[in-house]
Amino acid sequence: MAGGSTTLNRRDVEALVREVLTQKLRGQINPPPSSERSVVSTLGGPPHPLVVNVSARHMHVTQADLETLFGAGTKLTKLKDLYQEGEFASEQLVTLVGPRQRVIPSVRILGPMRNYTQVELSYTDGIYLGLDLPLRISGNHENTPGITILGPKGALTINSGVIRAERHVHMSTEDMNYYGVKDGDYMKLKIDGPCGVTFDRVKVRYHPKVILEVHIDTDEGNACDLETATKMELIK
Amino acid sequence: MAGGSTTLNRRDVEALVREVLTQKLRGQINPPPSSERSVVSTLGGPPHPLVVNVSARHMHVTQADLETLFGAGTKLTKLKDLYQEGEFASEQLVTLVGPRQRVIPSVRILGPMRNYTQVELSYTDGIYLGLDLPLRISGNHENTPGITILGPKGALTINSGVIRAERHVHMSTEDMNYYGVKDGDYMKLKIDGPCGVTFDRVKVRYHPKVILEVHIDTDEGNACDLETATKMELIK
Repeated sequence: MAGGSTTLNRRDVEALVREVLTQKLRGQINPPPSSERSVVSTLGGPPHPLVVNVSARHMHVTQADLETLFGAGTKLTKLKDLYQEGEFASEQLVTLVGPRQRVIPSVRILGPMRNYTQVELSYTDGIYLGLDLPLRISGNHENTPGITILGPKGALTINSGVIRAERHVHMSTEDMNYYGVKDGDYMKLKIDGPCGVTFDRVKVRYHPKVILEVHIDTDEGNACDLETATKMELIK
Repeated sequence: MAGGSTTLNRRDVEALVREVLTQKLRGQINPPPSSERSVVSTLGGPPHPLVVNVSARHMHVTQADLETLFGAGTKLTKLKDLYQEGEFASEQLVTLVGPRQRVIPSVRILGPMRNYTQVELSYTDGIYLGLDLPLRISGNHENTPGITILGPKGALTINSGVIRAERHVHMSTEDMNYYGVKDGDYMKLKIDGPCGVTFDRVKVRYHPKVILEVHIDTDEGNACDLETATKMELIK
């Protein structure tokens, strides 16, 4: 590009692409349940646009557990990138079997590889499966239930690691400075629209490599009908 | 009862019984998904306690449609009374079949008989079945999708009548006077707790025979984890 004084950086381009895609997605009548649905607002202002993503049920795995499910030497293969750099939806799908012997098929593994195996479900899923899900931040598996997981090459029963993820907002230092909050603080997320909801207790999670992104689950995304939101606001 | 100057009326007794039952229900680990779960607060003050009920997916039927599904001459039989006088959960269950040929079994019919057939689902259900559910107040079937319903004696395809019920609060004249609202107004419902949420746009629905009761659906009840609520408040 000639000149270069007004070149867009990678994240600006990403934000623009995302906004166009979101508008397209909003016109889609039946979004598949296991895809990540995204709504973007530019009202959040600098340093990054306010992005709210609905996390559908998913799983993280260790290499050892991946190999139990998919066979020795298996690596996660990428289906698509997620919003945070380096995070991706893999092509690998598993089936969950709960204590009531009910089954949820086609649960996607999100990469990259973790040093723990974790299953993130909504309360609707938990009631269906017969699991009393604890509300947890990723990685905190104290007093969490287990589950049986089926892959094409094997089954695995974990004794803990099934959670409902506590709603949270990923922030860089710039984002925390902008909103005047620190890691571990709670904020409110106000969604206006036909099913308007204000979510209290959106936990701030700092990481040096992330940019502003709120994660809510499908119960929360459906409660506020995120796709019909007319305005979104993050409030200290 | 002797004297009678301080006799409890039927509704006072009901409210007390309900409160005890609610405390029992809160201790229940895995409430069955198709039952109506109830949380009661006495903080709403007179004239009636603030009751918030989660409506699980359910159906209302006309006598003709009931007979198609369950056979000629069938009457709804009562399983249990609901909060509003005369309303009840019937023993009759149907299976729903959506456009993706996916099935939701054990959907309960709520009585008494209606002069329209209506299916009330959550957005989670709608996405699963492949239906783009419109947000509607009960009975408004303009531009609503249909569905196939299976009963033990027959199948029925309705061309409209499948909705997500708009969150609402039933009120008597006394309740409306107390809160300073009128039929059709919107209020806010604030739920405090680990998954605290404030629901905007809770529609006031007046009927001379009802008492104060908020109805939210399972997505909304799970988003705020109603069973762990520490305080509930209805705000003008």
